[in-house]
Amino acid sequence: MELYEQLTAQGDKVRSLKTAKADKADVDAAIQLLLKLKVDYKEVTGQDYKAGCPPSGTAVSNDRQSENGAEEDTVDPWNVATNSAKGVDYDKLIVRFGSSKIDQELVDRIEKVSGQKPHRFLRRGIFFSHRDMNQVLDAYEKQKSFYLYTGRGPSSQAMHVGHLIPFVFTKWLQDVFDIPLVIQLTDDEKYLWKDLSLEDCHRFAEENAKDIIACGFDVNKTFIFSDLDYMGSSPEFYRNVVKVQKHVTFNQVKGIFGFSDSDCIGKISFPAIQAAPAFSSSFPQIFKGRKDVQCLIPCAIDQDPYFRMTRDVAPRIGYPKPALLHSTFFPALQGAQTKMSASDANSSIFLTDTPKQIKNKVNKHAFSGGKDTIEEHREQGGNPDIDVAFMYLTFFMEDDEQLEKIRQDYTSGTLLTGELKKMLIETLQPMITAHQENRKNVTDEMVKQFMTPRPLNFNF
Amino acid sequence: MELYEQLTAQGDKVRSLKTAKADKADVDAAIQLLLKLKVDYKEVTGQDYKAGCPPSGTAVSNDRQSENGAEEDTVDPWNVATNSAKGVDYDKLIVRFGSSKIDQELVDRIEKVSGQKPHRFLRRGIFFSHRDMNQVLDAYEKQKSFYLYTGRGPSSQAMHVGHLIPFVFTKWLQDVFDIPLVIQLTDDEKYLWKDLSLEDCHRFAEENAKDIIACGFDVNKTFIFSDLDYMGSSPEFYRNVVKVQKHVTFNQVKGIFGFSDSDCIGKISFPAIQAAPAFSSSFPQIFKGRKDVQCLIPCAIDQDPYFRMTRDVAPRIGYPKPALLHSTFFPALQGAQTKMSASDANSSIFLTDTPKQIKNKVNKHAFSGGKDTIEEHREQGGNPDIDVAFMYLTFFMEDDEQLEKIRQDYTSGTLLTGELKKMLIETLQPMITAHQENRKNVTDEMVKQFMTPRPLNFNF
Repeated sequence: MELYEQLTAQGDKVRSLKTAKADKADVDAAIQLLLKLKVDYKEVTGQDYKAGCPPSGTAVSNDRQSENGAEEDTVDPWNVATNSAKGVDYDKLIVRFGSSKIDQELVDRIEKVSGQKPHRFLRRGIFFSHRDMNQVLDAYEKQKSFYLYTGRGPSSQAMHVGHLIPFVFTKWLQDVFDIPLVIQLTDDEKYLWKDLSLEDCHRFAEENAKDIIACGFDVNKTFIFSDLDYMGSSPEFYRNVVKVQKHVTFNQVKGIFGFSDSDCIGKISFPAIQAAPAFSSSFPQIFKGRKDVQCLIPCAIDQDPYFRMTRDVAPRIGYPKPALLHSTFFPALQGAQTKMSASDANSSIFLTDTPKQIKNKVNKHAFSGGKDTIEEHREQGGNPDIDVAFMYLTFFMEDDEQLEKIRQDYTSGTLLTGELKKMLIETLQPMITAHQENRKNVTDEMVKQFMTPRPLNFNF
Repeated sequence: MELYEQLTAQGDKVRSLKTAKADKADVDAAIQLLLKLKVDYKEVTGQDYKAGCPPSGTAVSNDRQSENGAEEDTVDPWNVATNSAKGVDYDKLIVRFGSSKIDQELVDRIEKVSGQKPHRFLRRGIFFSHRDMNQVLDAYEKQKSFYLYTGRGPSSQAMHVGHLIPFVFTKWLQDVFDIPLVIQLTDDEKYLWKDLSLEDCHRFAEENAKDIIACGFDVNKTFIFSDLDYMGSSPEFYRNVVKVQKHVTFNQVKGIFGFSDSDCIGKISFPAIQAAPAFSSSFPQIFKGRKDVQCLIPCAIDQDPYFRMTRDVAPRIGYPKPALLHSTFFPALQGAQTKMSASDANSSIFLTDTPKQIKNKVNKHAFSGGKDTIEEHREQGGNPDIDVAFMYLTFFMEDDEQLEKIRQDYTSGTLLTGELKKMLIETLQPMITAHQENRKNVTDEMVKQFMTPRPLNFNF
């Protein structure tokens, strides 16, 4: 995968040298290196290098056996599964996806450039992987701005606390960097994948927009759009979709997403629609037609396949590659083995839950890392690494010291499961109540405002 | 193929009975017949019936050997080829495509219903095949209106006389039936298929629109649109595109169009974009949101694969199937074996040719059915069936008696090739000059008017 990325970069370099009509010797040297890399690639993978087709051993859903024979985690936009109670092995995922770890050095650098204490999601490795974040920061230090793009697939009206993770983090990024944000609601995708009507998907998009707005986004800096609406109101967006569609083959989406011949043609071409917002020219009303504003995409790691494809296409259609920040998955109440399901009310805390429902769900369904009896627990201690209540606190408790004390007390056995669950309940209840208050104040008029294509308060 | 159409119709019937919650006995009887047809189908074709997948023996480009071992004509949206100097065998094509012949009875009926003398293209079998035209006429007699949809792929600025055929005929249909017309310019398709930029394709669309407008269309009854523009300005159009995309699989487009795994995803999903204008709800500004206005598509027979697919999808998404009128191909000057090429200036008469160029091209390049020497020709006569000058006259000379006299005189040898060519030159020169005059009067403002989504002068 590393070699593949190197090859792709070298291909880009040769192209740009040729375009710039560079010195023949430089071009020849670059081509020599490219050819050498191709030979290396063939040796390592047994396959010919093909632009846009990562080595097939790395295609996530095709081959789930790792080299030592252990079952690998499944992570793609539609399936997340692991056998470990601790959840997906994210370090392995970084290697498999060819992304980079967000290490302490990068966290420190974000702190330095933004002048703000890093968000708890960064401090605690919840956003754990990235692509090209250093490039974004380099440019930002030189007064070159960028924009944020994130999204959601509106498959139902019900959103759970896990759905807020990317939005909470994106809001923090927007606040500290003071940059535009676009939020895509893929109602067309949900129509294509699920047994739902277009009208339902569109309605869910508008309902979900209310929950997103309730996170506190600034209407002067944020554009939220439904694909079904925006595709039909922006010729520039459709032009970028067609450009991507011309540069990606069925073979490629088959390799990246596992599509088959019996999939509908809408699914097959949809990845281009998720790719297009990563290019600033898709939003001429915001960027005044500029094509070169770089995009940073905060998202859960399962969305990375879309953006690997996007990054592959970008230089071939004359656009900068988007940078990425990847988050881990928010665990289901039943444990970290699976992603939550919006259709199972007991699998998570929903944004519409009452304080009583929250209390019952946590007490009844949150998988515990504690021991069977109080006596055993006091003696042997609990395991916070597999305890869902503790995991949820790492997402939502702001105070690092308090969280660390809880970890130690739980591990030592001083803190009982019931007490730990009580702390989570007392963290979630006011948080959800506040969200519900905020959402109640989001009017249809406000939704319309956020979802109207218009200039934002930035000069590009 | 007939069995396939029967099966599809029966499937539609079962579905509509179920939707209407019809009597159980009726539903059961319909299902019994459906199952019986499926068994018959398997016996005849050796394949299982699959909705939307016509029996693969009829897939045009896959199997070019007919039963008796003779090479069959190739006819699909991108290739037309035959070994016969008379051109494609259209009677065989009707059987292969499963359409119906436009016979004298139908021509008479069009005359009766419209109250007008049938267009020479109907009188002379240039529009030779149809689907459901009788249904359109039945409804029209009951005061139920319909609309026309035709189009063009703008792959270059240059249009030749052959490109006018569908537009000349469509104008006649619009005049005699007094109905709305939508004209699709598939600039997105040309971008996906050709080595052209989006900007070029869009510019060609606007240039081609001028030639189309010069045919005399009424701006109050006609909407011309570029896909690149209209997709980005009509959420209803995109919604219909997505609906079609959900109901067609890669397997189906592979069977119908011969796409392969190495085709780009834009090509694979494009057929939905050519399908969507066949549904009246794609144009709410014209049809006030009505979904049930039937569409009649006049087009060259090579476009039929798109509309076979469209007709298959229509009932599954709750829309009426479009009806069709198919034309033969306009022959190249070099002979009827191939379709003309807009990129070979000598393959046809272009709409920009001067009278002198027309004269030279006809004299130099028009394939002749005459004999090598005047003496031989006088003695044995010429063959009008393979003579391109005569073929062109069947397209453009209005007077039936005059044309018939030319045929007889040429066949008998009374009329020499040079004289025949002179008649064609004298027919084409004033026609092209008049077109050029009309086109000169088409202003950018007029193009803008035609291409602006707006209500037309019809009450729906």
